[in-house]
Amino acid sequence: MKKLSELGEREAIRLISDILSKGDVAVGIGDDCAAFEFGEEYLLVTTDMISQKTHIPKEMTPFQLGWFIVAINLSDIAAKGGGPLGLVLSFGLPKETSETFLKELTKGANTCATKFDTSIVGGDMKESDDITICGTAIGVVKKEEFMPRIGTNPGDVIAVTGTLGKAGAGLYNLKNKILDNDISKALLEPTPKLKEGKTLARQKCVTSCMDISDGLSSSLYQLQELNNVGFEIDLTSIPISSELIQLHREQSGLDIYNIALHFGGDYELLVTIPAHKFEKAKGTLKKNGTDLMAIGKVTKKKEIIINDGKVKKILENKGYEHFTSRAF
Amino acid sequence: MKKLSELGEREAIRLISDILSKGDVAVGIGDDCAAFEFGEEYLLVTTDMISQKTHIPKEMTPFQLGWFIVAINLSDIAAKGGGPLGLVLSFGLPKETSETFLKELTKGANTCATKFDTSIVGGDMKESDDITICGTAIGVVKKEEFMPRIGTNPGDVIAVTGTLGKAGAGLYNLKNKILDNDISKALLEPTPKLKEGKTLARQKCVTSCMDISDGLSSSLYQLQELNNVGFEIDLTSIPISSELIQLHREQSGLDIYNIALHFGGDYELLVTIPAHKFEKAKGTLKKNGTDLMAIGKVTKKKEIIINDGKVKKILENKGYEHFTSRAF
Repeated sequence: MKKLSELGEREAIRLISDILSKGDVAVGIGDDCAAFEFGEEYLLVTTDMISQKTHIPKEMTPFQLGWFIVAINLSDIAAKGGGPLGLVLSFGLPKETSETFLKELTKGANTCATKFDTSIVGGDMKESDDITICGTAIGVVKKEEFMPRIGTNPGDVIAVTGTLGKAGAGLYNLKNKILDNDISKALLEPTPKLKEGKTLARQKCVTSCMDISDGLSSSLYQLQELNNVGFEIDLTSIPISSELIQLHREQSGLDIYNIALHFGGDYELLVTIPAHKFEKAKGTLKKNGTDLMAIGKVTKKKEIIINDGKVKKILENKGYEHFTSRAF
Repeated sequence: MKKLSELGEREAIRLISDILSKGDVAVGIGDDCAAFEFGEEYLLVTTDMISQKTHIPKEMTPFQLGWFIVAINLSDIAAKGGGPLGLVLSFGLPKETSETFLKELTKGANTCATKFDTSIVGGDMKESDDITICGTAIGVVKKEEFMPRIGTNPGDVIAVTGTLGKAGAGLYNLKNKILDNDISKALLEPTPKLKEGKTLARQKCVTSCMDISDGLSSSLYQLQELNNVGFEIDLTSIPISSELIQLHREQSGLDIYNIALHFGGDYELLVTIPAHKFEKAKGTLKKNGTDLMAIGKVTKKKEIIINDGKVKKILENKGYEHFTSRAF
């Protein structure tokens, strides 16, 4: 009988999915959120758990921990084009946790929620050995604006919002202290792309969407498998974050494309859009202050090719394990 | 600066509640569920977390653990008169967890969900040192059928569904092995009172309601504080479970009223109903196969009196710490 470490997370999720009865749900396991029919809207539900020993860098403050659990749940609502109704949080905390820690944790969660026009509406608190925080976000989206994970076709453009490598640069700098200035904010206080998700959703042009919490390569492989297509990614089109470029100036041996391709935690949106609708979508997002960068195209052949301008090869699937979030 | 162990859970929840911004929510922190306005209905959301080292007896099987996390969340939906739409679950599991454990955990959760006509629609899985399971249930209730925690008045009857002491008897027997037969099922596989909650809600006679997850005395003190009233409880009216009576036959020194009053984990409903509506409500519930037992009355004076037929005294507030659930 296998252990989880041998089984692997993907196989474990398949095992869970095979056991669970399919309920009366419009979108179930395998998307960023579950979606229930609710009149003309979908009700979105998503949950994420983090625990200190395995997912939280020691430099993360309690305020940032609270911010983080709210932000990563809102990111899943953003990826479906939805707006949040509210969140519930469960805190598993050791007895010796200080009052200050609890206050800062709560302030961080509340600050992130109010920043994105939502609130923490309830929760639970339990004694536990390890700090474990679980959040659930509830949201709504008009049915015709819902951005599913499944729906792309060969010929679509594949694109990302914002830039990649912010979180990777943040962790690299926390560990190696290359830069004096603080570039870890994107890692420790990520921004859920709710405005960007909503702007894209309203245009009704997105054929598939997910957030890039697990890293670009891992996300591409998940989307590719679900949609039964392939991707050809143009390496030099990947928008590299200014933080990563700063780091690279100090340490020229740093493989910035490796970080931008494989490191998780950026919480940008990965979208596919029919080619003839792409420029308009990009322009509309730009007016709202965000870049949408085409990084390649959807292909028929079920493989993911990375093209560096000289050589085409198969993209490796190696999402980092930091902050991995594997929704089932 | 205090630690959580010095602060106490009640004070910690107050601290959290003071920090959180009040969102656009019909019912927020302090009830069994949060409730959002959703057309003619309320959308109910509740979350509960359990962790192995501090909340789960070693005799609980993985199947029962899965059942338990679903049941205790559904119990909160039941206490508001709602019906469940679905649940999301987060599993924090150690690397060395076996495939069998994961399968049984999932089967238990799925069996409980399908038994109560709902389903697990999504979740999250993370590596953690300790087994920590968090569930969130979503439900709906017609606005006019919602049973709040706040709303009772002096003169109301206070009553409980079913019997008390089932979970206490189960744990006592697990620890002391008095009876050969298995009386621990009510402890390890509790039944959420969804049918009972719905039946009561439809009669629109309930002025306040909560589940008795924390034990009767603790629940009475919570309800008393929220409603700014008092209670006079008739000790001999408390419906004692057959399991506890069986135990008492074997061990006559056992203080059954102490267990029935203070031990948590029974997941019955504690309700207040205007005196002139009580008999009809009781009769309707009886037709549906459940007893509703009046255990006392709501009083003006802000204290909780226990009357054993001879002496009236102040009821102690001492909920056991097993399976405590302190929603904030």
